[in-house]
Amino acid sequence: MAEPPVSPAPPPAETPAAAPAAEGGEDGGVSKKAAKKAEAKAKKEAEKARRAAERAATAAASGSAAQTEDLAKDNYGQETHETKLSADLVEVNVKTLGDEHVGKSIKLRAWIQNARMQGAKMAFVELREEGNWSIQGIVAANPEGTPVSRQMVKWVGAINPESFVVVEAKVQKPLEPVKSCRVTNYELHITKCFVHAAAPTVLGMTLAAANRPVANFSDEEVPVEQEVEKLTIASAGETTGTPAASMLTHLDNIVMHKRSAVQQAIADIRGEMKELYRSYLRSHGFKEFEPPCLIGAASEGGANVFRMPYFEKEAFLAQSPQFYKQIEIAGGRKRVFSVGPVFRAENSNTPRHMTEFTGLDMEMEIKDDYREVVHVLEGVLFHIFRNIQERCPEEIALVRSVYPSEEFLLPEPGKEVRLTFAEGQKLLREEGPEEFRNVTDDEDMSTPQEKALGAIIRKKYNTDFYVLDKFPEGARPFYAKEDPANRKVTNAYDLFMRGQEICSGGQRIHDPVELEARIRTKGIDPTSPGIKEYVDIFKQAGVPAHGGGGIGLDRVVAWYLNLPSVHLAAFYPRTPKRLLP
Amino acid sequence: MAEPPVSPAPPPAETPAAAPAAEGGEDGGVSKKAAKKAEAKAKKEAEKARRAAERAATAAASGSAAQTEDLAKDNYGQETHETKLSADLVEVNVKTLGDEHVGKSIKLRAWIQNARMQGAKMAFVELREEGNWSIQGIVAANPEGTPVSRQMVKWVGAINPESFVVVEAKVQKPLEPVKSCRVTNYELHITKCFVHAAAPTVLGMTLAAANRPVANFSDEEVPVEQEVEKLTIASAGETTGTPAASMLTHLDNIVMHKRSAVQQAIADIRGEMKELYRSYLRSHGFKEFEPPCLIGAASEGGANVFRMPYFEKEAFLAQSPQFYKQIEIAGGRKRVFSVGPVFRAENSNTPRHMTEFTGLDMEMEIKDDYREVVHVLEGVLFHIFRNIQERCPEEIALVRSVYPSEEFLLPEPGKEVRLTFAEGQKLLREEGPEEFRNVTDDEDMSTPQEKALGAIIRKKYNTDFYVLDKFPEGARPFYAKEDPANRKVTNAYDLFMRGQEICSGGQRIHDPVELEARIRTKGIDPTSPGIKEYVDIFKQAGVPAHGGGGIGLDRVVAWYLNLPSVHLAAFYPRTPKRLLP
Repeated sequence: MAEPPVSPAPPPAETPAAAPAAEGGEDGGVSKKAAKKAEAKAKKEAEKARRAAERAATAAASGSAAQTEDLAKDNYGQETHETKLSADLVEVNVKTLGDEHVGKSIKLRAWIQNARMQGAKMAFVELREEGNWSIQGIVAANPEGTPVSRQMVKWVGAINPESFVVVEAKVQKPLEPVKSCRVTNYELHITKCFVHAAAPTVLGMTLAAANRPVANFSDEEVPVEQEVEKLTIASAGETTGTPAASMLTHLDNIVMHKRSAVQQAIADIRGEMKELYRSYLRSHGFKEFEPPCLIGAASEGGANVFRMPYFEKEAFLAQSPQFYKQIEIAGGRKRVFSVGPVFRAENSNTPRHMTEFTGLDMEMEIKDDYREVVHVLEGVLFHIFRNIQERCPEEIALVRSVYPSEEFLLPEPGKEVRLTFAEGQKLLREEGPEEFRNVTDDEDMSTPQEKALGAIIRKKYNTDFYVLDKFPEGARPFYAKEDPANRKVTNAYDLFMRGQEICSGGQRIHDPVELEARIRTKGIDPTSPGIKEYVDIFKQAGVPAHGGGGIGLDRVVAWYLNLPSVHLAAFYPRTPKRLLP
Repeated sequence: MAEPPVSPAPPPAETPAAAPAAEGGEDGGVSKKAAKKAEAKAKKEAEKARRAAERAATAAASGSAAQTEDLAKDNYGQETHETKLSADLVEVNVKTLGDEHVGKSIKLRAWIQNARMQGAKMAFVELREEGNWSIQGIVAANPEGTPVSRQMVKWVGAINPESFVVVEAKVQKPLEPVKSCRVTNYELHITKCFVHAAAPTVLGMTLAAANRPVANFSDEEVPVEQEVEKLTIASAGETTGTPAASMLTHLDNIVMHKRSAVQQAIADIRGEMKELYRSYLRSHGFKEFEPPCLIGAASEGGANVFRMPYFEKEAFLAQSPQFYKQIEIAGGRKRVFSVGPVFRAENSNTPRHMTEFTGLDMEMEIKDDYREVVHVLEGVLFHIFRNIQERCPEEIALVRSVYPSEEFLLPEPGKEVRLTFAEGQKLLREEGPEEFRNVTDDEDMSTPQEKALGAIIRKKYNTDFYVLDKFPEGARPFYAKEDPANRKVTNAYDLFMRGQEICSGGQRIHDPVELEARIRTKGIDPTSPGIKEYVDIFKQAGVPAHGGGGIGLDRVVAWYLNLPSVHLAAFYPRTPKRLLP
């Protein structure tokens, strides 16, 4: 196994500079093969440098004078647990740097985003703390060689990008605004610099590549040779740009993938959406509970379920917490919600599917009408959409700068769009594309139909978010409550964003006699494993009318931002072909 | 499959009363066998009642007059979607009932907790809305038979406990405080009563039994005959009480288990603790992320890991989110936390173990010293302990009334107890029981040792919560960072409640060279599956020093309340023998 290239040790005297800054710097190095080749080369050079350093050290130790004494030798190098900065330094955050810091010596812990020499006596570095919060650092040799020597400048200018450093520096105002960093009105005049953790000489994927839109989402491995060729062509055509990498390359270089500002912005938006979901429901009387992932029986016929040996038994992974949400209601909780993983063993390799995703589920007693549930689901999603824009305006703008999208349109309060399924089909017949002229009210909608309907609704009602209610009986599972006034349809609904389903729900049958009858109508044996346990819940004691819904968090994030794939919204996307990292 | 007994239809005339109130009512019926027998009997009676009702209806329809006309016949019965209460009723919650409601007609949806006749013209019911919020209802026949007839009284008095009803009633002040209900200063004079969802004639477990402390936590099935016998003996010896049921009976009757006030109180406390965990970390700059459950390689040697077929591969269930927390830090997030399920395929059948439990995990960059992490972990737990008492005083008191426990002792701020592992062993040697006189500083502690130390610390420092730091090298996994000043110990710690570990954590090795060396020292091949992927993270780019910890939520809840088993703290406990419900 290849040892990771270590950051160069500070040369004790005028030894040749250690490994140079990453070749290709910010505009290449996304293929494994190229990275390996470069790494080998870098290793050779590092080894050369190490030997030179050893020679020089030996020379110094044996008394033969080095060419120039390095008066700054204690001010840079590899950090050890004995490294000391000046006492009483203020540790700052790049984000909160202000005029009150100007002229003061501060301490900063950050990643070297870029380092370059400017002649022999000066080096510029970009120091990044979090997201895209970067600031320019300058290290300039003092004629006296203290605190900064020419050797120190050379060493700092050669630090590998994405190494983590600790610097001591004086905050100053630059002569003109710094264009290359997010912080434009301050710069850091570095007096000490220690490498806390070194990056390899060549990164598997550069930060610039990580910040480009993902080039393709195929889970199929592209042969390395072919990919290298593709990259070369892309680079040649686009001299100033950075070639985009595939999702596979991003996942193989997960650390750099996550260091990209765009992924951090997506993660922040996701986190806030989740919190908005919880806080809204909590403030509306919902209690959080935790459904299990490991279950003893596969419900809904056992299709698309992961199964595994479990001691002397077999266990399954829950496809939905619905059964458990309903037990909570049966168990006397008025309103419950959960946030957690759900699993689908579906061999679907599309930008909309994952085998593990995060479900935002809720269930509640119905007092008079199942539309009470629809209103809560609408309410929580409106709450998310209206507040996320206020909480994360910069993050949303940043994501849009990489993945351009039209603004997510919401209706005015009171003008929410709620159509019945039949009304939706009518719109498709009357205003949709040619091929949907003959859609009927009792067949389910296909994904292309849903998208076409989304486009019609956006044009007609100026909204990207709407509800489709009263799905036909045949399109819903056995537990869906039929509309007592029209048994051809159910009290079940889907919620859509940009023409794509993000939430499915409905009123459930709470009467065990009605439930068993309907299970039989659906051609299922009510005594089969999973089904029997489900029906039994409603026989244990009287269970009030209730309904709920399940929202796919990954989809909400992805479709809100109009990302090309739900995989970009997930922290660790799981697909039939991908379980790592 | 047995049909569930349906609530008796309102007799159109003086037919014999339908099924009587649950036999054994509040003090029996916890065994399956007894329940089945009783259910069969109830079915027969319900069928008899149905036939009688049919006869009477036919008689009425054919014009032959019923003995007495029931003038209240529209005011009670099985609710249908055409059932109507009076217009403009105020729907109330039992909890918020006040003097402003006295004299008014209100609507209430609730469970019948108990129903009994008082002579032929009056019935008392206990109506429970949520938790133990119950109120007394009275239904008294009016001489004119309207709105309440003798038939109606009889019918209401015979409703099966745990049926869900909708009532219309007038709020009144009782002549003297009602002792049997939580609401003592109001009662409801019922004018309409409809059964929305009927409970079976005999419950699998009564509410009273569900509210008793669980009798035993063995996962082994006790033969039904034996259990019935045991119950009979218990009932005989304890004439006024209700026999306690085993955990298996509770889980087989999950609906009644969850309807018990004690389980609802535990669930509320758990929910608030979880929220306190999140809000504290969010306010301290931590970002939430979601680690995957499905992973491609089993870390830590692959022991105790669930494995399953995954398309053409094999997948494992994550035992801990640690690998992923560290990727987040490597990926540039300063501080992260997660809340989610973790899995252990450990065949441990103890009150401290489950195969699936909820992990509260966190990880953060270390600036100067790993104790920064200890302080955050301490901080978040103090935050939980100090606030839960304020948020849930009634729930805690309620749990204590069923599972008595001493108050959970906390140190004064500034007097937190942090001992080194060596100091802990010294205390055990000097002040512990005889058998721990010779414990040494380089062996790990056993559970009995931990408990003994907890008792010493409680006595000495007046706290049930403390930290043990600097665990010996041999007691910690390969990723634990050694103390640079003393390589025999690690910068790793455990946190304890009442002498039991609830959190384990430490500083991780962030340098890949150091990490590989230590993996080899531990006798592990650094290129083995799971390990290689782990080490590679630190080679992708420079990763700053970091540390974290994982808290077991189930244990925090259980040990805070001093519950006899962690299974009581879980929503759906998973053990090697139990996957249902």
